[in-house]
Amino acid sequence: MAPAASPLAYIPFVSVENMMRLVHHHGIEQVLRDLAEEIEGDYRRWDMFEKAPRLASHSRDGVIELMPTSDGQTFSFKYVNGHPGNIVKGYQTVAAFGLLARVDTGYPLMLSEMTLLTALRTAATSAMAARYLAPKGARTMAVIGNGAQAEFQALAMKAVIGVEEVRLYDIDPAAKRKAVHNLQGSGIRVTSCDTAQDAIEGAQIVTTCTADKAYATILSDNMVGEGIHINAIGGDCPGKTELHRDILSRASTFVEYEPQTRIEGEIQQMPPAYPVTELWQVVRGDAAGRRGSREITLFDSVGFAIEDFSALRYVHGKLQDGDYCHQLDMLADPDDPRDLFGMLQRAA
Amino acid sequence: MAPAASPLAYIPFVSVENMMRLVHHHGIEQVLRDLAEEIEGDYRRWDMFEKAPRLASHSRDGVIELMPTSDGQTFSFKYVNGHPGNIVKGYQTVAAFGLLARVDTGYPLMLSEMTLLTALRTAATSAMAARYLAPKGARTMAVIGNGAQAEFQALAMKAVIGVEEVRLYDIDPAAKRKAVHNLQGSGIRVTSCDTAQDAIEGAQIVTTCTADKAYATILSDNMVGEGIHINAIGGDCPGKTELHRDILSRASTFVEYEPQTRIEGEIQQMPPAYPVTELWQVVRGDAAGRRGSREITLFDSVGFAIEDFSALRYVHGKLQDGDYCHQLDMLADPDDPRDLFGMLQRAA
Repeated sequence: MAPAASPLAYIPFVSVENMMRLVHHHGIEQVLRDLAEEIEGDYRRWDMFEKAPRLASHSRDGVIELMPTSDGQTFSFKYVNGHPGNIVKGYQTVAAFGLLARVDTGYPLMLSEMTLLTALRTAATSAMAARYLAPKGARTMAVIGNGAQAEFQALAMKAVIGVEEVRLYDIDPAAKRKAVHNLQGSGIRVTSCDTAQDAIEGAQIVTTCTADKAYATILSDNMVGEGIHINAIGGDCPGKTELHRDILSRASTFVEYEPQTRIEGEIQQMPPAYPVTELWQVVRGDAAGRRGSREITLFDSVGFAIEDFSALRYVHGKLQDGDYCHQLDMLADPDDPRDLFGMLQRAA
Repeated sequence: MAPAASPLAYIPFVSVENMMRLVHHHGIEQVLRDLAEEIEGDYRRWDMFEKAPRLASHSRDGVIELMPTSDGQTFSFKYVNGHPGNIVKGYQTVAAFGLLARVDTGYPLMLSEMTLLTALRTAATSAMAARYLAPKGARTMAVIGNGAQAEFQALAMKAVIGVEEVRLYDIDPAAKRKAVHNLQGSGIRVTSCDTAQDAIEGAQIVTTCTADKAYATILSDNMVGEGIHINAIGGDCPGKTELHRDILSRASTFVEYEPQTRIEGEIQQMPPAYPVTELWQVVRGDAAGRRGSREITLFDSVGFAIEDFSALRYVHGKLQDGDYCHQLDMLADPDDPRDLFGMLQRAA
């Protein structure tokens, strides 16, 4: 990198390697707890944020999305793809990076990997939602779909609400074995199950996080008993759902940002009048969360830009603690800002 | 950076330093000609692109924009700010970076600085438009507003359509002196003018590129004679214009992408029925450009995502020629794509 450029030209960049160092320095469970708290804090000031459905570019193979938001002081956006076929090519289904910037100058504050950070913030959001929506004292969860998100979900539910047992099921035994293996030594009791029905046996929380891009029925109506909390992660774009619509008819449904979830979430199966509650209203105490022990609650989670904002701000706040970034020469910074051409000319 | 990560984890990054090296290796004028050709080529296949008005986050001090597009094979977006007050803080009014990605996997192909590249592509677009809209044999241009874009405009008009003389005016004498100085030795005859009226004397092309965020009247109606081509660059967000509306009434107006220009361009002053022609139709021969020697033509340019796409693709195509990038460890790449957690765990 150019040693000659001025400090304004440089943007701190958090690589994958540095994100992993940062997470291990603080401990994964602590990071998940901290992220849940950051996200909850930003949900409390929901009305301060600029909100829009994400900008999605759909293609045959998947989707590329830009997810911006701003609280008036700080702007953030995430670039994220969703390509279910990537797995067989050896690529991640979801890969992401993001940026934090100052609203008053428009200058970036930090560029960061967000594949790991998205996995962490998605799990932290689920756990934060479960605090309001899961039955009191829930200690057992099922995780159906044991891909990249599975272990993060289990660990966040342990760290944030004290889940003690996780029951795993995936249509692919290799994925299930991977999750069982990774959760050894985590302090969570792990049970490998042969069917989805088996997995949800005795679970108070059922997390679905499969990646198929199709109207799938991971949970059918007769599988879902009274009083459980469903945390549906995998239905997150048009044409992609995981739950039978009869479950939705019986459940009280909570969403992040209604206009986006109507397009992308499980509720895309339902008529526009199907009632939902935005989670921030519950967090603020403006709406009820779980109303009784027999209610079926559903968090129809598609991921929202404010959660990425919270996560990026958390990481940015930790940069001072250690050497977790390096400096990218990303912005042209002439001595006289109007003299961009002169800067180029003098570099000849 | 982590030496252990696999090639999939790395994204080529073009720093400001490397962008300058790349430009000088090929020569600024050649780069401007090549960019004009790339942009023209993409204008010819306009219907293949996904188009949307950019996503703009407005604040008191300026705007932050995300400008995405895709041709079905390749996706691009640019992050760019516009903060007129930045100058006095020693920051660029406009700073930018951008990304190119594969549509089939959603994986980034290249991250690049775009402050310089935007200046180059904006000038190249102006020159490409002037080829269709300026009077035949135009040799003299006025540049009103001598900020960061001014010299690029002059050089592109020289490189692409053979302009020989540039007449400079800025309300700030220091800006004008800077532009005069930078264009010494460029092969363009440079005239420093005391008023805007003086600058447009004898010019066949008038480029306005001021940065005030207000309804300004850089050109008033009585200043604009028959037969000139106005290249209006500086009116590029709501509330920011440079031309008196009476000029618009007399001119044939050409735009990049009508829905965006109605919001951001000079034509925001006009009723919705005010007729405009999208430039790609002229490039394709589907609509007339300049129709006679007495016509006033106006290119109401606000910048469009396809121009950034063209510019990023040009740069990406040049990466093989030299050592113009370094590799960023930006994407998590576990051996088994589903084993993101395991990758994190093993890094402990």
